[in-house]
Amino acid sequence: MTREKLRIGLFGYGCVGQGLHDVLNSSRGFKADIVRICVKDKTKKRRIPMSNFTFDKNDILNDPSINLVVELIDDADEAFNIVTTAMKKGKNVVTANKVMVATHFRELVDLQEKYKVSLLYEASAGASIPIIRNLEEYYDNELLHSLRGILNGTTNYVLTKMHNEGMDYNLALKEAQEKGFAESDPTLDVEGWDAKYKLCIITGHAYGLFIDPEEVFHYGISKISTFDIRYAREKGFKIKLVPFVGKTNENTITSFVLPRFISSDKYLYNVDNEYNGVITEAAFADKQFFSGKGAGGHATGSAVLSDISANSYGYKYEYKKYQQGTVSEYTRNFKLEVYLRYRNEKDRKLFGLKDVSEYFSSKLYKYVIGIVNLENLYNLREQLPDMDVFIVNTGRKVKQ
Amino acid sequence: MTREKLRIGLFGYGCVGQGLHDVLNSSRGFKADIVRICVKDKTKKRRIPMSNFTFDKNDILNDPSINLVVELIDDADEAFNIVTTAMKKGKNVVTANKVMVATHFRELVDLQEKYKVSLLYEASAGASIPIIRNLEEYYDNELLHSLRGILNGTTNYVLTKMHNEGMDYNLALKEAQEKGFAESDPTLDVEGWDAKYKLCIITGHAYGLFIDPEEVFHYGISKISTFDIRYAREKGFKIKLVPFVGKTNENTITSFVLPRFISSDKYLYNVDNEYNGVITEAAFADKQFFSGKGAGGHATGSAVLSDISANSYGYKYEYKKYQQGTVSEYTRNFKLEVYLRYRNEKDRKLFGLKDVSEYFSSKLYKYVIGIVNLENLYNLREQLPDMDVFIVNTGRKVKQ
Repeated sequence: MTREKLRIGLFGYGCVGQGLHDVLNSSRGFKADIVRICVKDKTKKRRIPMSNFTFDKNDILNDPSINLVVELIDDADEAFNIVTTAMKKGKNVVTANKVMVATHFRELVDLQEKYKVSLLYEASAGASIPIIRNLEEYYDNELLHSLRGILNGTTNYVLTKMHNEGMDYNLALKEAQEKGFAESDPTLDVEGWDAKYKLCIITGHAYGLFIDPEEVFHYGISKISTFDIRYAREKGFKIKLVPFVGKTNENTITSFVLPRFISSDKYLYNVDNEYNGVITEAAFADKQFFSGKGAGGHATGSAVLSDISANSYGYKYEYKKYQQGTVSEYTRNFKLEVYLRYRNEKDRKLFGLKDVSEYFSSKLYKYVIGIVNLENLYNLREQLPDMDVFIVNTGRKVKQ
Repeated sequence: MTREKLRIGLFGYGCVGQGLHDVLNSSRGFKADIVRICVKDKTKKRRIPMSNFTFDKNDILNDPSINLVVELIDDADEAFNIVTTAMKKGKNVVTANKVMVATHFRELVDLQEKYKVSLLYEASAGASIPIIRNLEEYYDNELLHSLRGILNGTTNYVLTKMHNEGMDYNLALKEAQEKGFAESDPTLDVEGWDAKYKLCIITGHAYGLFIDPEEVFHYGISKISTFDIRYAREKGFKIKLVPFVGKTNENTITSFVLPRFISSDKYLYNVDNEYNGVITEAAFADKQFFSGKGAGGHATGSAVLSDISANSYGYKYEYKKYQQGTVSEYTRNFKLEVYLRYRNEKDRKLFGLKDVSEYFSSKLYKYVIGIVNLENLYNLREQLPDMDVFIVNTGRKVKQ
């Protein structure tokens, strides 16, 4: 197969953009030129000559010599604008923007088909872990029961520091931001949005359903307290933020993002700091585990480079599971066992917990372990930010 | 992309062949018929009607309606015969035969080119772990420093039983064979041959060099003793059989198979029983880890199915690293730190150990830890089976 020589127009020169630049410069076997870089901030000092930059996106979008657009900006709306314009002009696109892909998934799939262009976004989920490509290419005909993992580097860094070093939540978050692992708005990370967008992208390739992120329940770690950490430690667990998607029957899946207790004999237990990890469970291959860096300019840059390289070979996602159409339904009618740490009985009541197996009460805090329906949690989603509670999925199998 | 309807001729109906049959029958989205199965043993009872079988390979090879040959027999010479004949007749082939691929690697690559056919062999290394496809597709332009892992399920099962349950070597081996994890000849497993063949296949896709397995030093676990297990346990290590391939400079690689001490904070420490695990280290993606079942009919069968499915989409390996040709040299001039358990001083002398950091002597056994050159080990390869010694790579970085 012959490789196309790539002439790249790059949008964004932040952490990932610069990481990509480094990776590209160090990669000898590979022929690709960054023709021009479009950035927003005219006053910011850049580490390469200003002649490389433009502030007008049309300098890239209207340049017929540029055959690949690499989009690495923060603003999802502007990214969508850039990406769709490029596609309509027949340019292939590589992006790392999970918010954009997750919220416009179906439309972006259709545009690829309509304009015969390729849109690759491996870096948008799991950064350096090639999970999208593996789901697309390798698990094609496997009976995939479920997929879960750690997909957000910031929260994992924070939880690691809290567990391993007894660090305070706010201090740990500040450190994560200083190290460049956090997104520009930490809410996206700590409230579980980021993990949810990634989960929705993965779901598209794992099961062929393009779920509106609004339909998926997510819950983050911003309400975690030292009580929760202490409880977990006493039981030999770590708390990790774990997105899950899995089959509930032949043609139906469910998904959610929740903190989860992880015992020390589990793969995810040792996935610490900014590392991500993904576990797939399938009928015949059984359990498989992938792990790698989930944040940072170079790790993400190397995933972007991999997409650029795949592009030079004419690769495009085929959305095989979507074409097969085996899975067609999404449900939130799914029972979970959760640990609920709370203060007021009226809050607890809202959850309608069944089959309570543990209950603890002290002057400082209370917790209860019982079964909740995911639909219940979803219905509470707007009240949860104002409640003094913290929810953790115990991970135990529940009879549905 | 349209999918070709596959009509499969299957060679072999042992553990993996039957596993594939199960997997294929359970996979709904997938259209492929096993038209005929060629087996050797005319007297063996089969679990499906005899009308599915033939004893004459030409019934498959000369059937123009069969467009894919799946080769899952034990005999590497006969497999080579079948596979090359099929390729010359323009049929695509999927195989799990690591001995055949590793020993005829270059020739098989050339035949694919010459006859415009595809030969896929994901199941030949790492069974259910999609390591070949990932090296081929994903690490294309990454600066891959090294790859190491656990690639042999039998030895890993044996070592796990010895470490975790204090089981005796011979008993553990017998149990592994009873569970169907061991190859027909256990020598291939326990002496490290199997791991070496897999390493050579991986090397082809990781670095583009097709190394003659004869050039690669391998050492297994058949000489392991309770002293070695006890030493490892006291230091908090497990002993695992770990093949390694890595760069020594820009255009040169080295590789070997040796037992290795693994500390509890390492990914490979928890890769137990029949599971395999692979760690890649690359310039920008940093450390990545893949794990999954490395033996058993269903796990291997699902890797074979994945190749069959890829075939239906017209996939073939492009041997991208080989085409790039960045790495051109292979060396055994490489220093390693090893633990050498021995009895006779004259044996120890042969190793020419330098920079000894530990030495222990008792009536029962002695050990020494020092630096050895890989070339030295290679030159001793024919004497090693007769020596009362056991060698373990400490895994510590050595100044070259």
